[in-house]
Amino acid sequence: MAITLYDLAGAEADRRFSPFCWRTRMALAHKGFEVDTIPWRFTEKERLPQPNAGRVPVIVDGDRVVHDSSAIAAYLEASYPERPSLYGGEAGRALTIFVQNWTETVVQPALVALVVLDIWRRVAPADRDYFRRSREERFGRTLEQVVEKREARLPAFRESLAPLRRTVERQPYLGGAGSSYADYVVFGAFQWARAVSDFALLAADDPVAAWRERMLDAFGGLARQTRAAGD
Amino acid sequence: MAITLYDLAGAEADRRFSPFCWRTRMALAHKGFEVDTIPWRFTEKERLPQPNAGRVPVIVDGDRVVHDSSAIAAYLEASYPERPSLYGGEAGRALTIFVQNWTETVVQPALVALVVLDIWRRVAPADRDYFRRSREERFGRTLEQVVEKREARLPAFRESLAPLRRTVERQPYLGGAGSSYADYVVFGAFQWARAVSDFALLAADDPVAAWRERMLDAFGGLARQTRAAGD
Repeated sequence: MAITLYDLAGAEADRRFSPFCWRTRMALAHKGFEVDTIPWRFTEKERLPQPNAGRVPVIVDGDRVVHDSSAIAAYLEASYPERPSLYGGEAGRALTIFVQNWTETVVQPALVALVVLDIWRRVAPADRDYFRRSREERFGRTLEQVVEKREARLPAFRESLAPLRRTVERQPYLGGAGSSYADYVVFGAFQWARAVSDFALLAADDPVAAWRERMLDAFGGLARQTRAAGD
Repeated sequence: MAITLYDLAGAEADRRFSPFCWRTRMALAHKGFEVDTIPWRFTEKERLPQPNAGRVPVIVDGDRVVHDSSAIAAYLEASYPERPSLYGGEAGRALTIFVQNWTETVVQPALVALVVLDIWRRVAPADRDYFRRSREERFGRTLEQVVEKREARLPAFRESLAPLRRTVERQPYLGGAGSSYADYVVFGAFQWARAVSDFALLAADDPVAAWRERMLDAFGGLARQTRAAGD
């Protein structure tokens, strides 16, 4: 049974770099679904199915259209309770929201300020002006200014990962012995960077890097097979 | 059925300020236990039961002695599975470790640097030299220097609570509809400050302050009844 996913793509159709689409991609794999992905660009708003919020991820499951990564995860969990749980019950679901909020207030803002120029270099030609304009408006600076002296910000970024580091030092995944949606949420941020940038975010001996490798290996290497910065 | 808790106390026997003891106190209430607390001071290491690690919390449950707040929570969960769960299952337990690591790497280090001099003022007279010496050694500065210009650090402290804030804006507790051990871990840090300091950590309209009020109301106002800074 296949589900269709509209998935943000860069200049090459197989460069998939949206952190939110990666949450969905991993969640669909966790639930054991075959997925047909449709590469989509920022400027193709009219190509999305109805109801259309102009953003991805969007999934089409039979006659159901669901958009927004959190809504998609909740939909999959509610509609397919017999498949492996994304949250591991109500308590797991409640705490996953904390992990998501940490990812969105700590990890992603720091990360985008390190790699946003790399993203711009790898979006589709038709998306470049849109991407630069919208992001420069958000930052109030040019993309070049945003990433200036990024090496100097790397120690603080790595330090900010301490809660994740300590956790995956003592258990394989945030979800415990197996990965769960909380892992996919955090991993989505790293996969975003990996798809567009070869800037070394993590030291080689960082336990977070070892966890990231485990995530790249998951589901037959699903996330590893996507085009990365150097490819 | 009563469990005995060795609980860190200040100059007054009912000033209980250890963040780790508060985790245990709330966990015991969550599990529905009557608790006999024994006020204990830093310099009374020999008064603890065997096996004695020289630190609190320590609980005595019949002939079992358990120390360390995380070990105590795990012990209570394993020994009393028929009582309300602290974690809500394995996934909840795994993610609680992330919340604990966030608390210990983000919240507590920032908090102690705001209130450590207030703690010193309220520890038992016999503990004062020990407390000052051990903490000044840890910080490499005098306690007065540590708290210098603390008002200037307040915005960054409040900002660092963003993952908690966003979560308790959309659900009553980290644990979801009801509080869980993850809530007690974070709340322990605030209760630590409350017992010794009247420094306003949170803005009155902060959703984190509303959550803290809910925690103070929990279990018949257990945490509210302890002596606070102004008392």
